[in-house]
Amino acid sequence: MTNSDLSLAHGGNLDWAARLVGCTPPEILDFSASINPLGMPASVRAAIWAALPQVYAYPDRDYQDLRQAIADYHQIDPTWVMPGNGAAELLTWAARNLADANTGLVGLVRPAFGDYDRALLAQGVTGLPLGFDFTPVAPGILALWQGAWGRSLLLNNPHNPTGKLWQRSELLPLLDRFKLVVIDEAFMDFLADRESLIQAVESYPNLVILRSLTKFYGLPGLRIGYAIAAPARLQRWQKWRDPWSVNVLAQAAAIAGLADLEFQQRTWAWLPTAREHLFNGLTQIPGLEPQPSAANFILVKTRVSSLALRQYLLFNHRILIRDCQSFPELGDRYFRVCVHTIANQTQLLAALAQAVTELDFNSERSQFFS
Amino acid sequence: MTNSDLSLAHGGNLDWAARLVGCTPPEILDFSASINPLGMPASVRAAIWAALPQVYAYPDRDYQDLRQAIADYHQIDPTWVMPGNGAAELLTWAARNLADANTGLVGLVRPAFGDYDRALLAQGVTGLPLGFDFTPVAPGILALWQGAWGRSLLLNNPHNPTGKLWQRSELLPLLDRFKLVVIDEAFMDFLADRESLIQAVESYPNLVILRSLTKFYGLPGLRIGYAIAAPARLQRWQKWRDPWSVNVLAQAAAIAGLADLEFQQRTWAWLPTAREHLFNGLTQIPGLEPQPSAANFILVKTRVSSLALRQYLLFNHRILIRDCQSFPELGDRYFRVCVHTIANQTQLLAALAQAVTELDFNSERSQFFS
Repeated sequence: MTNSDLSLAHGGNLDWAARLVGCTPPEILDFSASINPLGMPASVRAAIWAALPQVYAYPDRDYQDLRQAIADYHQIDPTWVMPGNGAAELLTWAARNLADANTGLVGLVRPAFGDYDRALLAQGVTGLPLGFDFTPVAPGILALWQGAWGRSLLLNNPHNPTGKLWQRSELLPLLDRFKLVVIDEAFMDFLADRESLIQAVESYPNLVILRSLTKFYGLPGLRIGYAIAAPARLQRWQKWRDPWSVNVLAQAAAIAGLADLEFQQRTWAWLPTAREHLFNGLTQIPGLEPQPSAANFILVKTRVSSLALRQYLLFNHRILIRDCQSFPELGDRYFRVCVHTIANQTQLLAALAQAVTELDFNSERSQFFS
Repeated sequence: MTNSDLSLAHGGNLDWAARLVGCTPPEILDFSASINPLGMPASVRAAIWAALPQVYAYPDRDYQDLRQAIADYHQIDPTWVMPGNGAAELLTWAARNLADANTGLVGLVRPAFGDYDRALLAQGVTGLPLGFDFTPVAPGILALWQGAWGRSLLLNNPHNPTGKLWQRSELLPLLDRFKLVVIDEAFMDFLADRESLIQAVESYPNLVILRSLTKFYGLPGLRIGYAIAAPARLQRWQKWRDPWSVNVLAQAAAIAGLADLEFQQRTWAWLPTAREHLFNGLTQIPGLEPQPSAANFILVKTRVSSLALRQYLLFNHRILIRDCQSFPELGDRYFRVCVHTIANQTQLLAALAQAVTELDFNSERSQFFS
């Protein structure tokens, strides 16, 4: 576990970035992790504070209140809900199910969030690269994929890092085609559940939905997510993991956040406007091509190296963007930025314009002299 | 996951107990979970409060500061340290290692903490019952055990629920005999690490130590523990689990607790005196036989049913003790209580004396009338 191994694998690695430039993590303006810039709601902060004395006792291993709050929010039965130490923990158990369901291959839409590969490899299976139409991208392995029934599928919607959003009507037919479908809806709450498949879970025992609460409610440090799936499946997961996976403060924070309708409305109102501002601003910078996105982040194609851009912004402006080195299909010509406040986006856009000009100039000069 | 399934599997299930008697969890006087009654130290509370703004960012996936604090405390190298979401999370990965190390059998000193069985079963292996001398208790399976090299061993020291403490000199020879030895030292900090094997880890790559910080520092709701083992082994574990297992508040709390020498000294001074008070008090109640203990809990043999005792104390005194139903070897004739403050122990002892008399009388009467 060295810094250099870890630095590129995920957004939000502020400790690493701060150590690199010699400042404190809060001094970094973070566009690399796609966290709600409206911040943790006051209701959540108050709930954490009020729950502090509960730290002295074990969490309710049944998580009754939390499961009820999640069930109420989605209008489903609480036995279909399992809270986790972040969606990331639940991915570990979903991957174990994916590994059980087939013989060494799990369909994975690429590019894909790096932790999918880790979770699958930890269970001894590999992600078979699929295109956005859910068919294998490498013709040579089509044969392996024949009769997809018996195979399983892991995808996220909206898709990270492209921001693509599949409609319910595109995904529902997959449930008849795959033995197990795991959909990571980590960013779906930013879209007010517009294309969520949660309502389909009770009809499809082969469907698992993973959800995060940390991004929308500004809590990634506290870790809280949940799975929605058939009770029998969740009871199996419960035997695989320890009984107190979710801490009491995360539990209190989640219950408060889910009840904060005003904050939810405010976030849903902020996103489309701020995303349009960021998208338009990026379009105007020569050499950058933002990709249309339905989510709270934008993938950007860049003429200059994204790694060089990241270093430039970090060292000159203490701004952190997400280079795409950990997505082999994207590599050095893409980066991802989250949708932020207009003020912070204006700062990013100015810094990016300057960085692109300077790096372009340097690269021309080095070609000239070589 | 029903209440009745969960109620007996572990101490500290205050939510369940409170729902049963219709009060709030803090109104229960808890002797079932072995948490430091001196409470969370003020230094830890302050550290949690100061760290609240960090909730807005992801945890440092390297956990550099926390690993350094643990390493400094034990005077070992930080690469040998891996923090976890409670020792319970790390047991899951230790069990996967135990399963890898042999062909379906892991030696387990019985009675044993119920979560050991869960963790082993989740990996497809069973605990082979061993006596306190580490030899199989059932003569019929001695043959299976021949050539213990290649087998592995899971035990805790001090032992839960008996309170037995093995000396270093008794355990060290096991490291030459077993392929893998996992020692859960969840309560060893209460003994100022007197017989800890942490210092042996660097010489034995087949040794894993699991530690908890939640019991000593009064943090079970926040979840924090760690493993000490060879770096290569911990790097493997890191690939099995998600990258942000420990939340930022637990991290801050642990660092503050480990630095609070005054609180540690106070706890080490409290334990022997309070334990002696509890032991002597229990001895004086007819029908109760406390077992000598080196830990911060005492196992008690009881003439009347421990389940009946538990119900009586809960409904009449809002006191929760740990019946031993989840330890099949102990069943209904044992219960466990933690060492507490003298004042609370006095309350427990009075309630126990009353309960034993009343239950004894009822059982004699029912025999008389039957």
